[in-house]
Amino acid sequence: MKMNSLTYVLPWLLFSLLLLFTSVSASLHNIPRLGLLDKTIRRGPSDTKSTSSDSEDFKTFFYSQTIDHFNYKPQSYATFKQLYVINSKYWGGANSSAPIFVYLGAEAPLYNEMNAVGFLPDNAPRFNALLVYIEHRYYGVSIPFGSMEEALRNETTRGYFNSAQALADYAEVILYLKKKLSAKNSPVIVFGASYGGMLASWFRLKYPHIALGALASSAPILYFDDITPQNGYYSIVTKDFKEFSKSCYKTVRKSWTEIDKVASKPNGLSILSKKFRTCAPLNKSSELKNYLDTIYCIATQYNRPSNNYLPTVCGGIDEANEGADVLSRIFGGVVAFMGNMTCYDTNVYNDPTDQTNMGWSWQTCSEMVMPIGRGSNDTMFPAAPFVLKSFIDDCRSKYGVSPRPHWITTYYGGQDIKLVLHRFASNIIFANGLTDPYSSGGVLEDLSDSIVAVHTAKGSHCMDIGRAKPSDPDWLIKQRRVEVKIIERWIKQYHVDFLAFKQ
Amino acid sequence: MKMNSLTYVLPWLLFSLLLLFTSVSASLHNIPRLGLLDKTIRRGPSDTKSTSSDSEDFKTFFYSQTIDHFNYKPQSYATFKQLYVINSKYWGGANSSAPIFVYLGAEAPLYNEMNAVGFLPDNAPRFNALLVYIEHRYYGVSIPFGSMEEALRNETTRGYFNSAQALADYAEVILYLKKKLSAKNSPVIVFGASYGGMLASWFRLKYPHIALGALASSAPILYFDDITPQNGYYSIVTKDFKEFSKSCYKTVRKSWTEIDKVASKPNGLSILSKKFRTCAPLNKSSELKNYLDTIYCIATQYNRPSNNYLPTVCGGIDEANEGADVLSRIFGGVVAFMGNMTCYDTNVYNDPTDQTNMGWSWQTCSEMVMPIGRGSNDTMFPAAPFVLKSFIDDCRSKYGVSPRPHWITTYYGGQDIKLVLHRFASNIIFANGLTDPYSSGGVLEDLSDSIVAVHTAKGSHCMDIGRAKPSDPDWLIKQRRVEVKIIERWIKQYHVDFLAFKQ
Repeated sequence: MKMNSLTYVLPWLLFSLLLLFTSVSASLHNIPRLGLLDKTIRRGPSDTKSTSSDSEDFKTFFYSQTIDHFNYKPQSYATFKQLYVINSKYWGGANSSAPIFVYLGAEAPLYNEMNAVGFLPDNAPRFNALLVYIEHRYYGVSIPFGSMEEALRNETTRGYFNSAQALADYAEVILYLKKKLSAKNSPVIVFGASYGGMLASWFRLKYPHIALGALASSAPILYFDDITPQNGYYSIVTKDFKEFSKSCYKTVRKSWTEIDKVASKPNGLSILSKKFRTCAPLNKSSELKNYLDTIYCIATQYNRPSNNYLPTVCGGIDEANEGADVLSRIFGGVVAFMGNMTCYDTNVYNDPTDQTNMGWSWQTCSEMVMPIGRGSNDTMFPAAPFVLKSFIDDCRSKYGVSPRPHWITTYYGGQDIKLVLHRFASNIIFANGLTDPYSSGGVLEDLSDSIVAVHTAKGSHCMDIGRAKPSDPDWLIKQRRVEVKIIERWIKQYHVDFLAFKQ
Repeated sequence: MKMNSLTYVLPWLLFSLLLLFTSVSASLHNIPRLGLLDKTIRRGPSDTKSTSSDSEDFKTFFYSQTIDHFNYKPQSYATFKQLYVINSKYWGGANSSAPIFVYLGAEAPLYNEMNAVGFLPDNAPRFNALLVYIEHRYYGVSIPFGSMEEALRNETTRGYFNSAQALADYAEVILYLKKKLSAKNSPVIVFGASYGGMLASWFRLKYPHIALGALASSAPILYFDDITPQNGYYSIVTKDFKEFSKSCYKTVRKSWTEIDKVASKPNGLSILSKKFRTCAPLNKSSELKNYLDTIYCIATQYNRPSNNYLPTVCGGIDEANEGADVLSRIFGGVVAFMGNMTCYDTNVYNDPTDQTNMGWSWQTCSEMVMPIGRGSNDTMFPAAPFVLKSFIDDCRSKYGVSPRPHWITTYYGGQDIKLVLHRFASNIIFANGLTDPYSSGGVLEDLSDSIVAVHTAKGSHCMDIGRAKPSDPDWLIKQRRVEVKIIERWIKQYHVDFLAFKQ
């Protein structure tokens, strides 16, 4: 697979978390799923184009990975091929103990993600860093048991698909690589974004002997087990809308009952289908509502100075003709956001064959249970409380086992995180942008001198880890600079300690 | 099961590690095993008698434990009954956030161990601590799949028997208990001895959100993956002998070739059988050699001022009649150590139905691969290098899967431990006695201000965690006092932090 053929679009690469959860919480028993990337975006510059010089430097490898690290049955010893990619162009080499930057793949094919994490190649020359990208098990081409369909169809084969196993995979690949490269003394820094950011921070916590530090970009590690209020996510979407345009916010807020009102009429659904120019006739009003919900979430979560998603949507809503009714205004927002199209596919985000949709649906129904919901009137959305019992029932009927909603906090912690980590652990950056709805579940204050929160008021989801561009605003440049400085300090301190302790 | 019926003998409770490894490394393909406790000791005071008042305060419970924490197959959700025991006599209660002391069971039935860890009840009044003892999965009565025999016979059922699963068990039980007792704010300190000490330190590392600190008594966490030289263990046995009595050391050193010489004669084995008054005729000389090996190891590892094991053995060897030959001297040591018996059962330590023998044999053949061996002439023992390949072959043929000799260091670390933990983690005491052969694989220097090594020159295996006695030497009293002070500091600091961060 050639790197320079990978020209996916940034915002879509890192946000599967959002969409799936939005959908899960909004419509528990009829879960809409993420669409393929090129179906969801019609315009806007690509942030992820790799330069051809970059692409030539990537080398692809496969590691023969153990299927089950925590069991010693004969079948636990089965292996699958795990993809990892190396860029050694900038590396100072093992002799100088130059660092290794490892990107921990998340819930998407690695090739889709790696070009979006421009922070690594942007800073590799400064650090003389080796770049390593490792694909998450059960995504991309790193799928055991033949195919995603096969692996997920079977009650038994999908059991190995979880975060603890994924972290152990990363541990094995990194140790193997350090050995192969004779780079025992090269410090490793791990990077991850969104779910991958959670993995990065957890990896530093669980495997401090392998990773010296972690940059966790937009990692909502506190959105589990009711540490964060259910409505945290949608409160921020609402706040973003309200702050950008009060009238836009009001229109959205009003629209849901309007939709219900029309839907309840005879022929109501076909009136809505026509009004929203849907490609297929609507079967229920929730199809439309989930579609709109998703658009608003994307528009806030991935709003960038370079794409102006939120201004675009709200522009469409606010700038409709004087006297336009609420639903026409809402449709104006859709058109502005999606572009002027013959028709709008309300299922565009729900492709059931998309790997991220398939995989994340399983992950949320096993351990990644993030209770995202909304009460009545606490957001601009209709009430949709997260009801654990219904969620569990739904997952059980889908997958034959129940989710374990308390496991993430049992294994990784989360409650009283400052109390716990103030004197334990070190070297983690929790990066957030406060307009990102997922920042509600992020770590927003320093936990200690070296477990720090770096956030920006205007930033959205995973902005810092993206590729630097001339048009980047000052606050983003500054955020990245702070992160680089911190990582430099870790590495410098490592070398000081190394000299002191290796004598 | 009544507590006051438990009057097992201390040294035997905590040393299964030793014997099994001694045996494994000494005779790879003919592994002698630990005997039942009352078969191995003929004299000496019991350190483990619980007072009847203690016993009445113990309450027994069972937790419905998940069989596989790291998988989401339907069969992973099976449960087994895990024993835990509570003593709330001294507890200050949840309202005062009084601490919880948790003893992490190791490779033996819990009831056998808990009365030996006198450190907990001895110090509970001072801390107003709740005492909790949790049995390790697959030992005692906490065995899935019916029985130890059943669980271990099957290639599939024994796969769940490993340390990562055991730590997750402890995590679940502790969280469950804190909830049940409404003791969310009570700090938890975990305690463990020998293998259990490893578990305690690893638990603090992996679950800092659950345990505030750990006392790891005689935990050879560095005896993996060649971090510690192979002969570390036997070097200390040798040193102990040599320092106690040069002539005793010399006699032992000479004895092995003497045994071989006699054994190679016609009727050699029956001469040896007679000379050593064995209960059954020897089938090979290694039976005798392993038996003696084990006695010397026990004599050093569990030498105490109260039992004088080493002086006893060497007394028997040195004080033989003037002009006695080497083997008579050695037999004198056996008689002195074991007591004057009609005959000596050279298989006394190898009861194949003993749970510790059965369980630890599996644990060493899966993940707890400790490369203990000896070169030629680097100890007072004959050469017996640890050969990984033979070890793997042997395990494979026994259990149908290969051990994973690098897994412990992959999951828990160990290499460059000071470099790694100097700025990561906190609140672990590594306690050791330097006459303990296992101290060779222990942490003997402070890793940071709060990850500290507390060792004594004269101490043997797990002495500090035993019950305090009027006859205890000053250095032992002092060691325990240091440990108590450190734990007090952790708890005090916890309360300060709690007030600061909960505002």
